[in-house]
Amino acid sequence: MARLILRIELDSKVRIGEDAIRLLELVEAKGSISAAARTHGLTFRRAWTVLDEVNRMFKTPAIATQCGGIDGGGARLTDFGREIIDRYRAIESIATCLTADELSALEAAANGP
Amino acid sequence: MARLILRIELDSKVRIGEDAIRLLELVEAKGSISAAARTHGLTFRRAWTVLDEVNRMFKTPAIATQCGGIDGGGARLTDFGREIIDRYRAIESIATCLTADELSALEAAANGP
Repeated sequence: MARLILRIELDSKVRIGEDAIRLLELVEAKGSISAAARTHGLTFRRAWTVLDEVNRMFKTPAIATQCGGIDGGGARLTDFGREIIDRYRAIESIATCLTADELSALEAAANGP
Repeated sequence: MARLILRIELDSKVRIGEDAIRLLELVEAKGSISAAARTHGLTFRRAWTVLDEVNRMFKTPAIATQCGGIDGGGARLTDFGREIIDRYRAIESIATCLTADELSALEAAANGP
């Protein structure tokens, strides 16, 4: 079945999408940026850059790093970081459910895998 | 206001997004791939590649080129090409309207432009 991949563009023109959300989820699960990066198949540097962009995008940080440098003491999601994930996944779920007929029509017209 | 940017991933894992849709709209308006590319700020080669991907993605072509080579005789949207645009814009509009509360909440938490 065809699926929607969403990015959200804020007024400031910065965008947050599936990659950043998945990284936030992995930081929550793994407790460190390096473990999240490894699981997602990204370099630490790339993961750090994506998460730093998310932290700068909003008034409240999404990720808090503990002492020992950016990853030395681990990293955890803030309450606001959890809120971003929840809102993104809610948007994804609402959008996917309510456009299912249109998505099915496009899939029916598509060449197979 | 925050806005949604959508890509649709088909079962075959190919994706169609805003850039391709905008190019289809511009081919319809301008009647040639080169004029569409110029208006969208893309090279002809890049625009051709994007549109060729769309043509291969579905059982029916979205763009028909007239004699004189790929762009020598101009290009036009097929009925199916128009259908793709209509379905994408319908998905965008439904998804944006029905997730407006979540989008507003994210925008309210964002740093300004």
